[in-house]
Amino acid sequence: NNTICPLPLHSFVFHHHHNLPIPPWCISQAAAKIDVDFDYDGPLMKTEVPGPRSRELMKQLNGIQNAEAIHFFCNYEESRGNYLVDVDGNRMLDLYSQISSIPIGYSHPSLMKLLQQPQNLSTFVNRPALGILPPGNFAEKLKDSLLSVAPKGLNQVVTMSCGSCSNENAFKTIFMWYRVSKYYADASAFNVSCCLAATHSKAIHKLDIPSLDWPMAPFPRLRYPLEEFVKENRQEEARCLEEVEDLIVKYRKKKKVVAGIIVEPIQSEGGDNHASDDFFRKLRDIARKHGCGFLVDEIQTGGGCTGKFWAHEYWGLDDPADVVSFSKKMMTGGFFHKEELRPNAAYRIFNTWMGDPSKNLLLAEVMNVIKREDLLNNATHAGKVLLTGLLDLQALYPHLISRARGRGTFCSFDAPNDATRTKLIAIARNKGVVLGGCGDRSIRFRPTLIFRDHHAHLFLNIFSDILADFK
Amino acid sequence: NNTICPLPLHSFVFHHHHNLPIPPWCISQAAAKIDVDFDYDGPLMKTEVPGPRSRELMKQLNGIQNAEAIHFFCNYEESRGNYLVDVDGNRMLDLYSQISSIPIGYSHPSLMKLLQQPQNLSTFVNRPALGILPPGNFAEKLKDSLLSVAPKGLNQVVTMSCGSCSNENAFKTIFMWYRVSKYYADASAFNVSCCLAATHSKAIHKLDIPSLDWPMAPFPRLRYPLEEFVKENRQEEARCLEEVEDLIVKYRKKKKVVAGIIVEPIQSEGGDNHASDDFFRKLRDIARKHGCGFLVDEIQTGGGCTGKFWAHEYWGLDDPADVVSFSKKMMTGGFFHKEELRPNAAYRIFNTWMGDPSKNLLLAEVMNVIKREDLLNNATHAGKVLLTGLLDLQALYPHLISRARGRGTFCSFDAPNDATRTKLIAIARNKGVVLGGCGDRSIRFRPTLIFRDHHAHLFLNIFSDILADFK
Repeated sequence: NNTICPLPLHSFVFHHHHNLPIPPWCISQAAAKIDVDFDYDGPLMKTEVPGPRSRELMKQLNGIQNAEAIHFFCNYEESRGNYLVDVDGNRMLDLYSQISSIPIGYSHPSLMKLLQQPQNLSTFVNRPALGILPPGNFAEKLKDSLLSVAPKGLNQVVTMSCGSCSNENAFKTIFMWYRVSKYYADASAFNVSCCLAATHSKAIHKLDIPSLDWPMAPFPRLRYPLEEFVKENRQEEARCLEEVEDLIVKYRKKKKVVAGIIVEPIQSEGGDNHASDDFFRKLRDIARKHGCGFLVDEIQTGGGCTGKFWAHEYWGLDDPADVVSFSKKMMTGGFFHKEELRPNAAYRIFNTWMGDPSKNLLLAEVMNVIKREDLLNNATHAGKVLLTGLLDLQALYPHLISRARGRGTFCSFDAPNDATRTKLIAIARNKGVVLGGCGDRSIRFRPTLIFRDHHAHLFLNIFSDILADFK
Repeated sequence: NNTICPLPLHSFVFHHHHNLPIPPWCISQAAAKIDVDFDYDGPLMKTEVPGPRSRELMKQLNGIQNAEAIHFFCNYEESRGNYLVDVDGNRMLDLYSQISSIPIGYSHPSLMKLLQQPQNLSTFVNRPALGILPPGNFAEKLKDSLLSVAPKGLNQVVTMSCGSCSNENAFKTIFMWYRVSKYYADASAFNVSCCLAATHSKAIHKLDIPSLDWPMAPFPRLRYPLEEFVKENRQEEARCLEEVEDLIVKYRKKKKVVAGIIVEPIQSEGGDNHASDDFFRKLRDIARKHGCGFLVDEIQTGGGCTGKFWAHEYWGLDDPADVVSFSKKMMTGGFFHKEELRPNAAYRIFNTWMGDPSKNLLLAEVMNVIKREDLLNNATHAGKVLLTGLLDLQALYPHLISRARGRGTFCSFDAPNDATRTKLIAIARNKGVVLGGCGDRSIRFRPTLIFRDHHAHLFLNIFSDILADFK
C-alpha cells in the first residue's frame, strides 16, 4: 500500500543511566501565581478517570457508534483556561487541548463575551455558502483574523471546514497551477502525482482504503538533542533529501510527474519528528529545481505553539512556500497560497460551505488575545521551562524517557515502548494531567497558548513523582 | 479521466407550442397571508443585484481569493425567513437557500433564542475533539437530532464537519466492512474499488485532479412528466442497470472488485435527474447480488425538502441502504450506517473534530421546529403548488421551460440553453427572486422548509411576468 509511509520508525535508544543521584535543581519549584483569572489554580481529582459517569456515557454512546477511542466525557461548561473538567467532576491540567485545537484555553472570557453580543448571533445561526453569498464583513474578518498572520509572500487565503479538506484543496490548487503553468504542452502524456514527503497519520486510518500511487519519501529520523548529533543528523537528512530527488526522477520515468511536495515542519502524528531548518531549506530548493509546488502542512504546528505563529518561519526561506495549510488552533480549516497559484476560473476550488464565518469571528478575537497577551513569547518561554524539565527528567530516568525534544511548547519525548507510554498517560490522567501520544511510543505536549511557566512547573512536579514511583 | 461521468447530459427537447392562449387558471392567485411572523411579506428591491456595495466588496475580496463565483454580498443580520437581504438593502425571496443548506429559514426565532441561553454558550466556544473527548450530552443530542430521523434499519451515526468528508468516510466504512466481511480470504490479490453510479459534481471541480480508477455508471436520462413516458423511461433505466452490472463484472476481471455502489436519490449537481422508485430498488438488488455496499448520498436531498425526511424513503426498500450520508440542511455532515458496517477498532474512522456539537445543538432545535410546524407535509403541499405552476408555465412557454420535474419543493426545469438560463436567473434576481442552476441548463428550486404555498404563488406570479416579457 503506497500511502503507508515506508519510513521505519525505529526508536533510538539512549544508554540507560540508572541510579543517578537526584541533582539539586528544582523540578519541584513552586508554581507561580496565575495571571489569568479565569483559569483554575490546579487539578482536583474526585474519581479515577474515566469515572463512573463517563463509563456509563461510553456504554450509551457505544450503542450509536464505535466509542472505543473515547478517553472520557467532558463538562465543557465547567472547563476553564488550561483545565478540562470531566462529567465526574475531575479537573485536569490539559496538555493535549483537544489534539492541539483549543488556542486560548477553555471558556476564554473574550470569546464568551463575543457570543453574548446580540449583533453576533446571526453569524452563528445563518451559515452561508461562503463561495457564492458571503456576508458583508467577510473580507474584513479574513483581514482581522487569517490575513493578519499570513505567512510571508502568501497573500491569498481560502477557508475550508476541516483539516482534511484543507490539505485536499491545497493539493488541488497545486495540481491546477501545475497543469496551467508547467505542463500545458503535453498534458495528456503524463499523469500528475504528488510527492508526500512527510505527512503521516496513524496507520490505522489508511488500512483497506484504496489510494493513489503517490510517492512517499522518508522523513529524517534524527538523534536528540539535535545540537549534540549535528554530524549524524546531517547525514540522515542528506539521505532523505536524496531519496526525495530519486523519487521525483523515478516517477517521471513512470510517466507520472510530481506536481508538489508536502511536508510538516514537525512530523506530528508520525511521532513528533523534527528536522533542521537547513533540511527544509534544501527541500524547498529541490521543489523549485524540479518545478514542484511546495506545500507546508501547518495544521498541527501552526497557530503559535512553537513560539512563532507558523513553525516554518524558523526556516528563514528566501523563496516562500507556495501553499501553507492550517486548521485546529485556527478554528477554521483552509490554506494560504501565493498569488501565482490562484485558480484561473470560478468554482475550481469550491464546496457548499467553504468554511464557516462564525469560526472567523471567533478567530479574529483569538488574534486580539494572542497579541494583547504576547502569547507567542509566552509559548517560547513556557516551552523552554517544559523542555528543560523534560531533559532533566530524562537524565534522571533514562529508562523511561528518551529523545526529549521540542520547539516552543510543541514538545515530546519517547517512552521505551507503547505499553509503558499507555501506562504513563493513564497514571498522569489519574493524577490530574491530560497527555496524548503520537507515533509508536512518543508522548506529545500540545497545551493551549495560555500555558504558562507555572503550568509547566506544576506538570513537572506531578510527572517527576510519577516517574519516581513508576514500576 | 475516469472521474468525469460519461453520462451524456443531452437535453430532451419538447415540441414547442408557441402562441398558446393564456388559460384561465390562476398563476397570479393572490398570496395568502403568512403564518410565520418573522418572515417578510415580499421582496423589496432598491438597486440592481449585485448593487454598488456588493460590487465594491467583490473587488476587495478578489484581492484575497478568486471571487468570480460570488453572486452578491449579504446582510444576514437583516435576513429573515425565506428572505435574503443583501448589503445594498435588496430583499429577495430565496429559493436557493445557500445551495439547499438553510433548513428553517434565516434568523429563525427558535435558533436565535437558543444562542441567547447562557448555558449554550460554552458549546459554541469550546469545540472538542468529539472522537476522544465528547461533551456529556453528546449521545443525548445525537438522539434529539440525527437519531430522531435515522433512516429505517440504520442505527449507527457518525458526524463529520462537511459534505465531502461525509462521503469520503462513508466510502472508508464500506471498504473496511468489505475487506472484513467479504474478502479476508485473499485480500492481496485484488484491489478494492467503488462503483459510483450517480454522483456528479460540476465537472470543473475535477479537472486536472488525479483520481482513482473508479467505474462511473450512467444515471438514467428520463423524459418528463415521468407518468407520461413510463415505457421509454423503463427502457432507459434497464439500460443503466445493465451497465452497472457490466461494470462490476468488467472491473472484477481487471482484478478490481467493486466494494460499493453510491447513488443520489435525485442526481442534483448533475442536473436534477430523477429515476423511478423501481430503478432504485433494482439498483439495491444489484448491490446485494454482487455483495457491494449500498450508499445513498442524501447530502442534497435529505432533511425534508422532498416531502419525506429522506428522499429514499419513497423507494420502499425491503432491505435498507447500508449507508446514508448527509450534510447541508442537517447543519452537520455525517452518515448513518447499519450495525453490520461498524468499524471493528478505535480510530478507524477518525479526525480531529469529527463534526461540531454546536451544530448538533442547532439541529436538535431544527427538528423540534420541523415536527411542531409539520414541515414535511408543508414541503409536499408547497412543492405541489410550485410544480403545478411550473407545468402550467411550461405549457404556456415551452420554448423557455421544459422538463419541469420535482418531488416536494425539490423542483427544477430546463431552460433551452445555458445562456437563457443565466439570463433568466439574472432577471429573476433583479425582480427579487434568488434561483440557482444545476447541470448544463437546469434551474433548480431549493427553498427552505418554511417555504409555503403563498411563497410559491408569489414566485409564480413574478416568474410568469418574466416569461411573458422575455426576449
